[in-house]
Amino acid sequence: MEKLMIKDTLTIIAERKSVRRFTGEQVSKENIYKILRAAMAAPAAIHMIPWKFIVLTDKIKLQTLADGLPFAKMLPGAGTGIIVCAVPKDAAMGSEEFAILDCACASENILLAAEALGLGAVWTAIYPNKESEEFVRKVLNIPSHVIPLNLIPVGYPAGDEKPKDKFDDGNIHWENW
Amino acid sequence: MEKLMIKDTLTIIAERKSVRRFTGEQVSKENIYKILRAAMAAPAAIHMIPWKFIVLTDKIKLQTLADGLPFAKMLPGAGTGIIVCAVPKDAAMGSEEFAILDCACASENILLAAEALGLGAVWTAIYPNKESEEFVRKVLNIPSHVIPLNLIPVGYPAGDEKPKDKFDDGNIHWENW
Repeated sequence: MEKLMIKDTLTIIAERKSVRRFTGEQVSKENIYKILRAAMAAPAAIHMIPWKFIVLTDKIKLQTLADGLPFAKMLPGAGTGIIVCAVPKDAAMGSEEFAILDCACASENILLAAEALGLGAVWTAIYPNKESEEFVRKVLNIPSHVIPLNLIPVGYPAGDEKPKDKFDDGNIHWENW
Repeated sequence: MEKLMIKDTLTIIAERKSVRRFTGEQVSKENIYKILRAAMAAPAAIHMIPWKFIVLTDKIKLQTLADGLPFAKMLPGAGTGIIVCAVPKDAAMGSEEFAILDCACASENILLAAEALGLGAVWTAIYPNKESEEFVRKVLNIPSHVIPLNLIPVGYPAGDEKPKDKFDDGNIHWENW
């Protein structure tokens, strides 16, 4: 029976939404691993791997981060948070830009994997706000050469949030700008 | 029968690969639209839309770009190219960083949509190489305030390229760095 419930990837991409309201049910470690496996399947420039992931479930840490970050108030309600960290020295040509790009792709995979698993997630920005980066580094003992890119709360969606249709034919140019 | 062939999103994410060898068969406009619809379903910071897409099928343009870019030699063989353009003035807080991040997510959606459709694609970098950015701006009349992020050849895969397993448990930290 489960096979009939599989949605194709274009549908999952279209249905992915920013989820900020959660039931409170905790996401299993098995699902966290599935999500991180998806993250690490992202493209990485010239096969250099510039990402690390910090998984947070500790209630006090979740609250501390929610209190100190402007866009992560929903974190304790989600129950789990993933911080995607970019490591420029491990990226193609030691480049911050490639580290950020590869980690953005890994982050998008996290959001899509969550949607595919029936979970909800949302990209809350840390980078490029230097103050937020420094705050997160301090709370989680992240070395100064590492950039915490975002904090992605992951949980079970309360169910009332809908995807936005952002398709606009006017954003497509053919053969020339 | 087609339903049985639908792969779930975690499988598509795992099977996505950089495809650089193509059969030469041209991708349909319908599939290009499906891919661009997926691109525009990416998250965009505070719902500002900082992306534009240039679709290229003109053989002379494809060859010109292949000749002038270091990583896009396979472009004429693919038959179609998509250039993802970041527009900082349209992004959250007019920020180049947010424009690049949103466009990276859109690009990852393009790669995944191609895989889901049985097509092949690969991110070839333009940004952050200033020379490549300027070259592409000149060839395609792109305004100076717009950043051509990458050029993604899209075509039918020759079939001999395999995904890389980049999963590494050592890249996961629990509760702290």
